[in-house]
Parts: sequence; C-alpha cells; structure tokens
Amino acid sequence: MLTKIQGIIPPMVTPLKGEDQIDIDGTIRLVEHMIAGGVHALFLLGTTGEAQSLSYECRYEFIKLVSKQVAGRVPLLVGVTDTSVGESLKMAKVAKECGAVGVVAAAPYYFAPSQQELIEYYTALADQLCLPLYLYNMPSHVKVFLEAKTVVELAKHPNIIGLKDSSANMTYFQTLTYLLRDQPDFALYVGPEELTGECVLMGADGGVNGGANIFPELYVAQYNAAQRHDVEEVRRLQQQIMAISTRLYSVGKYGSSYLKGVKCALSVLGICSDELAYPYRKFREEERARIAAALQEIMGKG
Amino acid sequence: MLTKIQGIIPPMVTPLKGEDQIDIDGTIRLVEHMIAGGVHALFLLGTTGEAQSLSYECRYEFIKLVSKQVAGRVPLLVGVTDTSVGESLKMAKVAKECGAVGVVAAAPYYFAPSQQELIEYYTALADQLCLPLYLYNMPSHVKVFLEAKTVVELAKHPNIIGLKDSSANMTYFQTLTYLLRDQPDFALYVGPEELTGECVLMGADGGVNGGANIFPELYVAQYNAAQRHDVEEVRRLQQQIMAISTRLYSVGKYGSSYLKGVKCALSVLGICSDELAYPYRKFREEERARIAAALQEIMGKG
Amino acid sequence: MLTKIQGIIPPMVTPLKGEDQIDIDGTIRLVEHMIAGGVHALFLLGTTGEAQSLSYECRYEFIKLVSKQVAGRVPLLVGVTDTSVGESLKMAKVAKECGAVGVVAAAPYYFAPSQQELIEYYTALADQLCLPLYLYNMPSHVKVFLEAKTVVELAKHPNIIGLKDSSANMTYFQTLTYLLRDQPDFALYVGPEELTGECVLMGADGGVNGGANIFPELYVAQYNAAQRHDVEEVRRLQQQIMAISTRLYSVGKYGSSYLKGVKCALSVLGICSDELAYPYRKFREEERARIAAALQEIMGKG
Amino acid sequence: MLTKIQGIIPPMVTPLKGEDQIDIDGTIRLVEHMIAGGVHALFLLGTTGEAQSLSYECRYEFIKLVSKQVAGRVPLLVGVTDTSVGESLKMAKVAKECGAVGVVAAAPYYFAPSQQELIEYYTALADQLCLPLYLYNMPSHVKVFLEAKTVVELAKHPNIIGLKDSSANMTYFQTLTYLLRDQPDFALYVGPEELTGECVLMGADGGVNGGANIFPELYVAQYNAAQRHDVEEVRRLQQQIMAISTRLYSVGKYGSSYLKGVKCALSVLGICSDELAYPYRKFREEERARIAAALQEIMGKG
Repeated sequence: MLTKIQGIIPPMVTPLKGEDQIDIDGTIRLVEHMIAGGVHALFLLGTTGEAQSLSYECRYEFIKLVSKQVAGRVPLLVGVTDTSVGESLKMAKVAKECGAVGVVAAAPYYFAPSQQELIEYYTALADQLCLPLYLYNMPSHVKVFLEAKTVVELAKHPNIIGLKDSSANMTYFQTLTYLLRDQPDFALYVGPEELTGECVLMGADGGVNGGANIFPELYVAQYNAAQRHDVEEVRRLQQQIMAISTRLYSVGKYGSSYLKGVKCALSVLGICSDELAYPYRKFREEERARIAAALQEIMGKG
Repeated sequence: MLTKIQGIIPPMVTPLKGEDQIDIDGTIRLVEHMIAGGVHALFLLGTTGEAQSLSYECRYEFIKLVSKQVAGRVPLLVGVTDTSVGESLKMAKVAKECGAVGVVAAAPYYFAPSQQELIEYYTALADQLCLPLYLYNMPSHVKVFLEAKTVVELAKHPNIIGLKDSSANMTYFQTLTYLLRDQPDFALYVGPEELTGECVLMGADGGVNGGANIFPELYVAQYNAAQRHDVEEVRRLQQQIMAISTRLYSVGKYGSSYLKGVKCALSVLGICSDELAYPYRKFREEERARIAAALQEIMGKG
Repeated sequence: MLTKIQGIIPPMVTPLKGEDQIDIDGTIRLVEHMIAGGVHALFLLGTTGEAQSLSYECRYEFIKLVSKQVAGRVPLLVGVTDTSVGESLKMAKVAKECGAVGVVAAAPYYFAPSQQELIEYYTALADQLCLPLYLYNMPSHVKVFLEAKTVVELAKHPNIIGLKDSSANMTYFQTLTYLLRDQPDFALYVGPEELTGECVLMGADGGVNGGANIFPELYVAQYNAAQRHDVEEVRRLQQQIMAISTRLYSVGKYGSSYLKGVKCALSVLGICSDELAYPYRKFREEERARIAAALQEIMGKG
Repeated sequence: MLTKIQGIIPPMVTPLKGEDQIDIDGTIRLVEHMIAGGVHALFLLGTTGEAQSLSYECRYEFIKLVSKQVAGRVPLLVGVTDTSVGESLKMAKVAKECGAVGVVAAAPYYFAPSQQELIEYYTALADQLCLPLYLYNMPSHVKVFLEAKTVVELAKHPNIIGLKDSSANMTYFQTLTYLLRDQPDFALYVGPEELTGECVLMGADGGVNGGANIFPELYVAQYNAAQRHDVEEVRRLQQQIMAISTRLYSVGKYGSSYLKGVKCALSVLGICSDELAYPYRKFREEERARIAAALQEIMGKG
C-alpha cells in the first residue's frame, strides 16, 4: 500500500514549444530544478499543467517523458480529470505503465453533477482505476463543489486515498480536516500556495503549489517550518510567498494571469518555454518585462 | 458554399447500451423516426448527445453510424466542442469524411476564457477547421457567455456561419438578431424548444430542439406556422410543447432531468435504449412510470 | 376587485437633483410625457426607480408627488421590495393613502431564501398588505429565482394577482404562461423591453419597460401590434426598440449603463435631471455626448 | 483616536419575541453572558444580527438597549450596511449617540456596484459618517467582492480603519494581510469562526465569530493561544470549534441553518428566544431536539 505522501507536490507546468508540442529540454530542466529544490512528489497534468488544453497524445507523451526523467526519485501523481470515464481510465493506464503511484481527478466538467451523482461517478471511477485516486476539489473550473459530506462518503472507498482542495475556502478545508480526523491515512492537500503555511499548521498534509515550479525550496522550507510549529518562520517565509503571489500572478487583467505568470517566470529564469495552449496565450513583451522586474526584486530579497 | 439551413435541427441523443457502447439498432430507428418527422437537419454530439461523456472512439463510431444511415437525406452537423484544439480538429476531420456539412463548437469548458481569448480561440479554430463552424452559446455548461460583441466580431470570419444559443436569455438573442441584421447568411438558432415559436416569429432561422428526438413533426409544424406568421397556430402548438416540457423534463430533482426524460421517453416509445453515460444514470422504475403516464396523456391530447 | 391591467407600465425613473432630493419639476414633466404617450399604468420605485438607493422619506415624498400629478388618470403601482416586512407594510400604507392600486415586491435581497422560505415570506406579506401584490422576479439583483412552482403556489393566494419577470429567461416565462393558463386573472408582465413584442404575441399581459420613460408611444405601439397579432409591425417596431437598447443602454462598461443611459437620455431631451443615487453616478460629458448623438440618430429614424 | 480593537468581537444575535419585537430580557442576559466570557467588543446589527430583516425602529431600539446594558464595559460596533446612504448615516448617528466607537458597512446589496463604484460609494460614506468605518466583505449576501486593490485604496481614507472578511477565501485574506503590512493600525478581522485560529496565527487582529454568542470563552481562549503562537492549544480548541460548527450549524437543509442553529442553541441554554425575522423561521421541535442533543454532547466534552 502507498505510504501517505506529505509535503510539497508541485503541480508541474507542461513546457510547450507550440501547439501540442512538448518542450523536451525545458521539461527535463524543470524536473531537475524541482527535485533539486527538495519537493516531495510531482503532480502532472493538473490545472497548472494545462491538461485539458492538450491533445491526449500530447498528454501521454508528457507522462512518459517526465517519468523517464524522474526515474523514481520522487513519487509521481497524474491528473486523469476528464468528462469521459473511458478516457480517464485510459490515461490512468498510461500513468501506471510509467510508474505513477496515484491519479488525481476533479469532477467531470461539462455537465454539473449533483452530489449524489458525484458519489456514483467517483465510485465507478475508483472501482475501475488501476491506481489509487485522489479527489480534486476545483469548483471554479468544474462548477461543482465536492461537499464535505460527499468527501466523507467517498473517503470510505478503499481506492480513494486523499483530496486536493483548490477552493481557497478554508471553512471547507477545516471541516474536512475535522470530519476525517479519524482517518489519518487519508491525505489532505491544499492548492493555493498562499495557504500552505496555515493549513499545515492546522494539520494538513501538504501543498500542491504552483509556485513550487519556480521556487521549490521556498515552499519546502515553509512546509518544514509549519510541520515543526515554528510560527515565526512560517510568517517570515509567507512574506516571500505573498510577494510572489502578488507580483508574479497578477500582471494583466486575465483570468489566466497566474498561469501566464508562472510560465513566463520559468522562461525568464531560463528553465523552459513560456508558450501556452489555447485558449491562453503567453505574455507579450511589455508584460514579460514586468515579470522579469518582479522576479529580480523577489530574488534580491530572498 | 453551404446554403443556410433553416428549420428544426434536432440535437440527436446518443443511444447507448452500456458504458461507451452504442445502441446500434436504436440509433437506426431514431434516425428514421426523425427523418420521417420532417426535420431539416441533424446535429450529432451536442449536449443532448452527451458528447463529453463518451470516449472519442465511441464518438467517432457514432458519427460513422449515423451518417451511413442518413445517407445524405438531411444535412449533418457534428459537435466538436472540446477543451483541446487538437481534439476538435481531429473530430472535425472524421465528421468531414462522413459527409457532415458543418461543425458546432461551444467555448472550451475547463478554463473560462475572457471575451478576447474567446475571439482568439475561435479564430484559431475556424482557421484550421476543414468544415464551416457554428458557434454554440451554452453558458450553463461552459461557464462563459459568448457576448453579443464577441459574436459580431467572429461573424466576420468567412468560416464561421452561424450560432446556436442555448442560454434562454432572449434579450441576448434579440440583440444578436438585431446586430446581425445585415448578415442574412449568418444563421441564428435557438436551443430551448419552448422558445422556437417566438424566436422564429421574430426572425430566427430555426430551433435545435431536444424534444424533436421524440416528436419531430410537432416542432416542424410550429416552425412552419411561425414562418408564415400564423400566431394562433404557433400558440396552439405551444400548448403541446409546454406540456412536453413541464411533464417529461422535470421528473425528479436532477439537473439532468431533461436528458433522463428525453431518453426515457424514447425508450418507453420503443425507439432506443435509455442508458446514460456517467455522470448521469437512467431513471429508475418509479420515475419511468411517471414518464410513461405523461407520454400517454400528451399523446392522447396530440 | 382590480381589473387586470394590460399594456405598457413604465417603471418610472425617480428624477433627482442631488442626494435624496427629488427633481420636482422633472417628475411632473416625466409624468405628463408618459401619460401623453399612452401608457396604461405607472410603476414607481422599482429597480429603474432606484428605490433601494433612496431614503424612505425620499421614497414617500416621491409617491405623494407622482400620485398628485397623475390624479387618477392611470393606475399606480408602487414597489415595496424590502428586506424587512415591517418596512414593506409601511410603504404599502403610504401607497394606499396616495391611491395606488397595487404594490410590487421582489424577494428580500440580503439573505437568500429557499423556495419554501419564499412561499412563507410572500404569504405573510400578502396576508398583511393593504393592497394587492404583484410578485417581481429579479434574480440578478436579489440572488434568488422565484421558481415556476413557487409562483404557481403563490398565485393561489387571493391577494397575489400577478408577476413581473425581469429574468430575461424566456423558458421560465413560457413555463409560467403555460402553468397559469387556467388563471386568466393572474397578470404576467415582462421586464426587458426587448421582449415585450414576442411575449405579448405569445400571450403575456404587457411590459414593464424602462424605455417607455423616454419613448412611451413606441412601446405602446408595439404592444398594440402584438395584441392584434400583426407580426410584421411588431418586427418593424422591434428595430427601433433594439436601436434604443443597443445604443442608449451600453455606453461605458458599467453594470449600470442601462440606468445611466435612461436618465441621461431624459436629461438630453429636457425632461428631467440625470442625477443618480449612490452607488451610481451620472454619465460624464463625453458619455453624455454619445447618448445625445445616439438619440438624434434614433429620433431621426423614428 | 480609536485604539485598534483586537480579539473576539461577537456579531451579536438580535433576540426577538415576534415580528419586530425585541426580547428585552434575553438581550440583557446575552450581553452579560458574552461579557462574562471575556469578549473584547460587541458588533450589533450585522448578518448574524439579522439587521436587514428588522424595521429601522426596531434596530434603533436594539442599539439603545444594548448600549445601556453594556454601559461602556466593552467597545460597541454597529452595522450600518444599507442600500441607501441616507439611512446608513441616520443609523450611524443613533449609534454615536449611544456611545458606539465605530460602524461597519458591507457594500450596498441591491445594485451590484463595480469596484470603482465601490470606491466612490465608500469614500462618500466615510466622508459623511460621524464614526470611524470598518469595511465588511460579505460577497455571498451582497453579490460583490471588495477586491484586495479596492481595500488597499480605501484603507488610505483616514476614516476607514479596518475590515471584516466573511468570504472564507483565505487567499484573499492573506493577500490583504500582506498588502496592508505597512499599515499596522488598519484592523483585519475574520468572520468564519472556523478560521480565527489560523488567521490570528498568521497575523490577523481577531475574529467576528457568531459562535461567541454561545461559547464566548472558547473563542477567546483560542484567540489567546494563537496570539502566543501556541499551535498545540490552537489545534486542541479547534476540535471544539469544529464540533460546534459541524453539529450546531448544519441541522436541516437551509441556507439559514447557521442562524437558526445559533438562536436555537441560545434558547436551549435559556439565554434568549429563538424567534427569527422573515424570511427565516425558527427550528421546529424535531430540529430543536437535535440541537439540544448536540449541545449536550459538545458541553460534556468541553
């Protein structure tokens, strides 16, 4: 059985060179950058990985490439979020063949299922999956909230072993933490990196933090500080995390400013390309200059 | 160049026997039923067709099966709505090979693009597509509204030839009708069948009405009455259309009551199976009995 | 008992000279302008009347002023929408003393009640009101939708005599029209003026149309054409109505463009002041110039 | 100048005996109960106080009654949230006469203002108010979010001295904490009591927690533990806070379960009546029994 993963699990960006074309060298550099930064696992093809925007062939290729490069140094999780159960199962099969230890699935995102339909859907999925499943609460993208009662019900399924919450709603997260207090093997991760500090202080298992693509060691350091209840240090590092959040993720008035910002910063740092898949486009020169300036300031402060 | 299609274009349900398994006999019967009812075209793999819930292989198979059965008797439109441009293009290629005359695409439905991003996305898609494109406004499922200004902008693209609006927001539909009044070749269809009468009276080109799977001749009759400005007859037929809407589509407290109701009614009438793909499940016996009773009453009145 | 009001019932703007100060001369001119235009009734202190933005004293004063000027020439309806039942009852008392024939209430708009709570709320209100009550469906402002079943339930109350729907959701409106077909005394009005034509063609009782503050005779003419099933004329007048809608109500990127536009147009025409109550502000010079230009073009065409 | 208030500031319920009738004895007991529990201030006529559901006369009476009973033992804040600036100013005048030290205002809640309109609105309000103003972010009730940039802008106004955030969105709260880090006099309070522990650990000034009506000493104890960075104790007390949250606030399927639960618990404990103002109604016997049982279990554990 899989030991519970704890710590920082970056939702890896998918470096692209063009439409449906992986930036292979960038991918390799990014994997090495994050492993060198001490991250505890990698999560491929989530929201930050633009999974839904890529063709399936492209997604398969990416899983193979990353798993080969990681070569077992950290556990791999793979996103299989889909509107079709059949496609989720196919993706999980590829993930397993590549050595992934678990898969992650948000709710189907075209139809908006009721909570009862979510229970039936996830049960059917978990029954058929060849790997353990993490639930993924992502209401802003999939329209439905995995309510606390739904999660508690699904947590009884032997093949459902954790949840990543990207809602930023901490009343919800605290409710889950409380209701699942007698299931210590069930993992609870928080998505927004601005919240890893407080969540881990309060008992969460870690953070699936996009910024850990860029500054893996920072998020790992805050996770460690929170684990040992060092509130001063958590708050000191939080200043850097918030500088990143407010400077790198809010250039322009895009809903996609976060994604554009992460990829642009990685490009400025020479790690990988900043191409985005439709419906998003990379930053233009003027915006890139602002990211570069912000990066310099943030890294000067570090 | 494609002559503008006018009239009733049923969004065909996808008859299923089980997970990702087409009900072939049911599909054949359903095609014949609708063509016998006088429909003006067929639209495959839309929302009513549960496209997103099916694997791609299953969708390809369905296009091939229907196009073979239709054999050119009515024009075929195929839904290529996807979150990945690459997959939309692949689907369109299959559609073209099968003789479809156009494709239909709602906005990408994981990320929620801005209006500017929608313009870029649809332009890129229309540039590369091998068939003419109909826009599809479906805000309840894809989270974003194709604003009137966005549609007006996109309507200038030579490969974008119409729009289906399923918002039920008639201020929006009237605004489009007005703003596009000098582009008579651009087709405007309304989704909700409760609105085909008034929309066609006011100048729309037709309805993409789910109920036309069950009672094709009824919607065709109302379309014809509206075309000749016979308000009395439009209102007389509207009574039957509303009886269907209020009796068949609101059994149970599901967001999916409409879909369950349409498939259940088709099954009660012996046309095709009522299986649904995840995240939805077919009606249970008690609910099926209510649909059967409602059908009997509706058909007695007809 | 009140005879059912049919036709155009302008939701009268509240002419202001400054914070909580009625523009008395403007109010008098506006009343005369609308009555001369043939409107069938007046509705005070609705959304277009900015009721919620005014102090209660100011609202009371306005009711008194308008009722005195109208002097019984057309029936008066008064908005009593409030979050407090007590304040609604007080407002209704003032309305009755001034000769109003009915009151109008949207749902309470701070807490978002469930449908069952709406039934209890409206029943309690209707039980205590000294005037007949019209329901007002205004989901964009009050957050809750008066579902069709809720309206059908409330329509049984002897003191609830109609509904104004400002949702623009015509599936809903058609559903109400159908479900209440055996209650011909229950009045159904549509809010958005872009929809009066089609709604009256399909059987509605009239429109509560903001544009009728500016061009009362236009909306009355379309109502009359729709009443006699003259589809050609309805569509001809619809062109003018849509020119108003698209030119006067969409200057600037405000949620309040409609309100600003109506008041600005009335000011340009010399009827009343264009001051708005907080949280809104009137158009600046540049925007006013665009309204003036649009008005000229619209009136030249008339 | 007002010293910054830090700690637990219960949003006091408004004990009622019937429609617009204050439960005077219950109010007195409730004030004494909370002061005995060590709360640092009281906040009247907020959401938990059902302000919007009460007539203005009733609200005025309540302010007078509470202020007389408190007699200066703790600072008083009064909610003046309104859709009319004039009514907010009148309420603030009463509050000042009764010795309140500040007022609290959520955004106007009928029209949904833009961020720019919010800045203009709050500036106009703060300019005219006779007491210092706390902003109140309550998006679920008022429809608009006070974006971080808006708050930063408004925090420059000398008469705007703090913010209460009831969004439960901790990314937002962390962003505010960071952006206002150089304005230590600006107070940041969190609404949901499930989050006071983590927010104070991360630097917030306190919690405006409904549960502190019932168990004031519990929230005060957690606040103190968080202030001294005692993570173990914060987490130990969090278990009790979550037991309250999950057991008392989720009886029934109401949006109003929280309010019903708080008042019902106070009634079971003999502190005050459980009547609610429209649109809400108090729990029925069966639900009250569940609250009583939950209370017994929670207090047994304490």
